[in-house]
Amino acid sequence: MRRTRPPSPTSAGPATREGRRTWGTRTAAPTAGIATFEAGGWRLEAVGYSLRPAAHTEPPMKTRAVLSAIGPDRPGLVAKITDFLLARGGNVEDSRMAVLGGDFAVILLFSVDSAGFETIMRDRERLAAETDLALVLRRTEARAPQDEARLLWQVKAVALDHPGIVHRLSEALAQRGINIVEFESHVAPAPVSGTPVFSMEAAISVPASVRAADLRAALARIGDEECVDIDVRPDA
Amino acid sequence: MRRTRPPSPTSAGPATREGRRTWGTRTAAPTAGIATFEAGGWRLEAVGYSLRPAAHTEPPMKTRAVLSAIGPDRPGLVAKITDFLLARGGNVEDSRMAVLGGDFAVILLFSVDSAGFETIMRDRERLAAETDLALVLRRTEARAPQDEARLLWQVKAVALDHPGIVHRLSEALAQRGINIVEFESHVAPAPVSGTPVFSMEAAISVPASVRAADLRAALARIGDEECVDIDVRPDA
Repeated sequence: MRRTRPPSPTSAGPATREGRRTWGTRTAAPTAGIATFEAGGWRLEAVGYSLRPAAHTEPPMKTRAVLSAIGPDRPGLVAKITDFLLARGGNVEDSRMAVLGGDFAVILLFSVDSAGFETIMRDRERLAAETDLALVLRRTEARAPQDEARLLWQVKAVALDHPGIVHRLSEALAQRGINIVEFESHVAPAPVSGTPVFSMEAAISVPASVRAADLRAALARIGDEECVDIDVRPDA
Repeated sequence: MRRTRPPSPTSAGPATREGRRTWGTRTAAPTAGIATFEAGGWRLEAVGYSLRPAAHTEPPMKTRAVLSAIGPDRPGLVAKITDFLLARGGNVEDSRMAVLGGDFAVILLFSVDSAGFETIMRDRERLAAETDLALVLRRTEARAPQDEARLLWQVKAVALDHPGIVHRLSEALAQRGINIVEFESHVAPAPVSGTPVFSMEAAISVPASVRAADLRAALARIGDEECVDIDVRPDA
């Protein structure tokens, strides 16, 4: 997220750090020897170049929101979605997109000021119609600070594909209050043999109360029972 | 996706490759010297060990479907979703999940037989209610073979974050008929300074008609204008 910048200086005022250009409207100098300029809610004083919000103006509050979309894949969908957000002041902060089967799928987090968020919510049907995607959009709140210390771990797994691997692993984590922060899995044919091979990579947030030895043992047991090669280690 | 396996042999019949165990029900031998066994729609002949679907039975057709879900994050969501799919015969083939702001978001591709798919569609409100997630579920068709040869390229980019980077890049790709197959982007504070830094990585499918030099030049121009460091190369 980039902070709003003050408007660019133009050519008739005092020197700024960007060169000899003026900036906004010249106002009465409150102190002899100091030239004062105002524009876009900012005041520029020519001596010392201090720059601060003028009285009664605040930078707009940022809203954060999440979008998910899914539908038939074709070129240009990412451009359409980001054009829609950008035109309403949205900035993509975090995203995952993939072609899954014949579909394009995306999940993303964006920030926007509250007026922009309302425009996005109002116009979303237009985006859905233009892209032929099933859209979900919702405001998201930053998570409350967690009451317990947590450490990020990394889990990687590879196996001959069979149903239930993700379920066994995620259940073992859920039982221990471990949160999956990031997850990616694939099934792809092995080189030469063509056998479908499952692979995954995840970042998990482990509460301090979970003993590392217990976590390792639980995953090793699943690895043994499900014939999965599992690598688990602190994400450092 | 794992193919349905024939039932395991038990202990009173001819040797199979898995050892000296029988398999299913012994049936009349159509040819002298050949013992024939049937089980689960398969017939096993003891000489030559040929194994093929018995008449009038076909392995169930697999349906592929995509799911997207988004909603307040808490531990156990992945376990609940995969439990729901697994109990109805679904196998996760490809997935991306992330905690975005305070929300959990997932897109995934799964395969399932058609009866299982109907059960999943029928019961999806139950999953939505249990998990408090906004769900989208739809069948996906394998893409028609593309009429033009395509090469997979990899694009990586890093920049000081500002709005419009993803849009500029995706628009340049869309204009050339280039498809984004996979995409991931993040904004994270730089070490020490804390400045928000944008980074992305993508796999793109480039039609043979696009000249590599043109693609490189177009991305270099964007890199120059938007102050983005872009690395683009064939994915080999």
